Amino acid sequence: MTRVAVVGAGGYVGRTMLEVLAREPLGSAPPRVYGTAASRGKALEYGKTSLRSEVLGEAPLACDVALFAAGSAVAREWAPRFVEAGALVVDNSSAFRMQAGIPLVVPELNGAQVPARAGIVANPNCSTIILVLALQPLRALGNFKVVVSTYQAVSGAGRAGIDALARERAGGEFQASKPFPFPIDGNLFPLIGELDAEFGGTVEELKMVRESRKILDWPQLELYATCVRVPVERCHSESVTLIYDRPVRRADAEDALRRAAGMTYVADPLKPPTPAPLAGTDLVAVGRLRQPASSVLQFWLVGDQLLKGAALNAVQIARIYLDRR
Amino acid sequence: MTRVAVVGAGGYVGRTMLEVLAREPLGSAPPRVYGTAASRGKALEYGKTSLRSEVLGEAPLACDVALFAAGSAVAREWAPRFVEAGALVVDNSSAFRMQAGIPLVVPELNGAQVPARAGIVANPNCSTIILVLALQPLRALGNFKVVVSTYQAVSGAGRAGIDALARERAGGEFQASKPFPFPIDGNLFPLIGELDAEFGGTVEELKMVRESRKILDWPQLELYATCVRVPVERCHSESVTLIYDRPVRRADAEDALRRAAGMTYVADPLKPPTPAPLAGTDLVAVGRLRQPASSVLQFWLVGDQLLKGAALNAVQIARIYLDRR
Repeated sequence: MTRVAVVGAGGYVGRTMLEVLAREPLGSAPPRVYGTAASRGKALEYGKTSLRSEVLGEAPLACDVALFAAGSAVAREWAPRFVEAGALVVDNSSAFRMQAGIPLVVPELNGAQVPARAGIVANPNCSTIILVLALQPLRALGNFKVVVSTYQAVSGAGRAGIDALARERAGGEFQASKPFPFPIDGNLFPLIGELDAEFGGTVEELKMVRESRKILDWPQLELYATCVRVPVERCHSESVTLIYDRPVRRADAEDALRRAAGMTYVADPLKPPTPAPLAGTDLVAVGRLRQPASSVLQFWLVGDQLLKGAALNAVQIARIYLDRR
Repeated sequence: MTRVAVVGAGGYVGRTMLEVLAREPLGSAPPRVYGTAASRGKALEYGKTSLRSEVLGEAPLACDVALFAAGSAVAREWAPRFVEAGALVVDNSSAFRMQAGIPLVVPELNGAQVPARAGIVANPNCSTIILVLALQPLRALGNFKVVVSTYQAVSGAGRAGIDALARERAGGEFQASKPFPFPIDGNLFPLIGELDAEFGGTVEELKMVRESRKILDWPQLELYATCVRVPVERCHSESVTLIYDRPVRRADAEDALRRAAGMTYVADPLKPPTPAPLAGTDLVAVGRLRQPASSVLQFWLVGDQLLKGAALNAVQIARIYLDRR
């Protein structure tokens, strides 16, 4: 019997993992859910039933797959213990993403890197997952530089982000750094995550650069990202420009995107994907493909940050592992 | 005595022109305001007083400066008549912008093109004005390609845009194409203006390309724009990446932006400009200047679409003309 654990199940990504698992279970038993002492006994929705949260360190760890939706500190401490207890850990934090020897996986692109035995697999950053799904198929046309500007939903800051927007909309006062440094309702701001002094941009922008290089196995990829928070509840959008080193054909790009795994190609330029209607869906949609110059392609991407951008991708990784055993 | 006219004063740009004129009058008399028959006798706020709208064709046209905030059709019909009557027309529509022989002016950059006699000057597109203010000073460092993604406020669609957002926020039903093709509250969409079939992008994106080339007198400029509507009331934001043809120094770019006319340089990367606080101000602010590679610069721009993006720029053009006579 396949045993699945969800660690940090009380957060938004964790709850979304339970939604995905309830919809398409990985095993016949419901998952065990783990949290900190503060979440002891907390009831978490799982389909039509509910699960009681157990406390890390008090309950046994033995399982086949542990989906981590906790922060980096919890992941660093507990992921190795779950591995020791025989689990494949799929970790959604940034703790292991850039560590050599740890696969960083988007199943449609590099699912083959999921190991056959207990170990850690890192789940990429949400904006990165959505982006690389489009970049990989378009590499077939040639090498390119990437310029990407994001339009990231408040769900990227978890429940606190969604609550902050709701509070402001209800007329509540803006409270700096709970979790946003600026008001978000009727506003937006180009500052997601801490600054990385050496890089000169934010950690979020740096993640997009480094993680894309690792997933695509393209260490020299030139990728220039600007990450912006917008007053949208969930679903990230991205404006992408590819500058190729040679002329390309738009028809080839269209073919590549139509055939791309994990993507829905929207051909009608008058009906581009927008974030609100895609919230809560598994789709990553790409539209408004255009070629303003012989060696330039532009397009628009939208995907649910909590699903393909986080929980769904993690569950897909776990499924590859379990199917392969 | 300087006589000023405002044509199409009932719209959002027109009202903002009256606000700017009330604050810093171009003449001692209040402006005459003109509209269509539907606006006959309508009272328009002008400082602490109000002005009665007159009907085009029923009232005399003679004046020194006519600021047009009407659509292209009205501009095509009436601008030449005001010129015949001796006026400098500053037209905010797109009717004359790309016409050979008609200056397209951002005063800080090419104010010298404002003629000394009656004639037509075109006021550029809002997103373009904000962008070229930053591009011109940065040309001193070398030639570049521009990739820009916009975050455009609903005020860009005039009063109807502001009303549409307010209606949705109040729980009203979304009505397609009044004026937006998609819901905007809690959403965003990458489709501003009609599509230009030959160009492959929207008319708004094409305006940014063509108008920037004309204002900067740089016909070969490679500029790739994606224009996106966001649920912000006023103030457009832009994420800009410049890819130079040679290595540049960030310090030189910072110097150039600090010295740039019409711009406020925000040095602190943790306090980038955001649109809501800049609404109703004359500032165009640039921040988050960074250099992710030796020949790449990135920055973030914010400016009030109704003020520097439209009404203020038009009044500044008129002032150059009047000062020069």
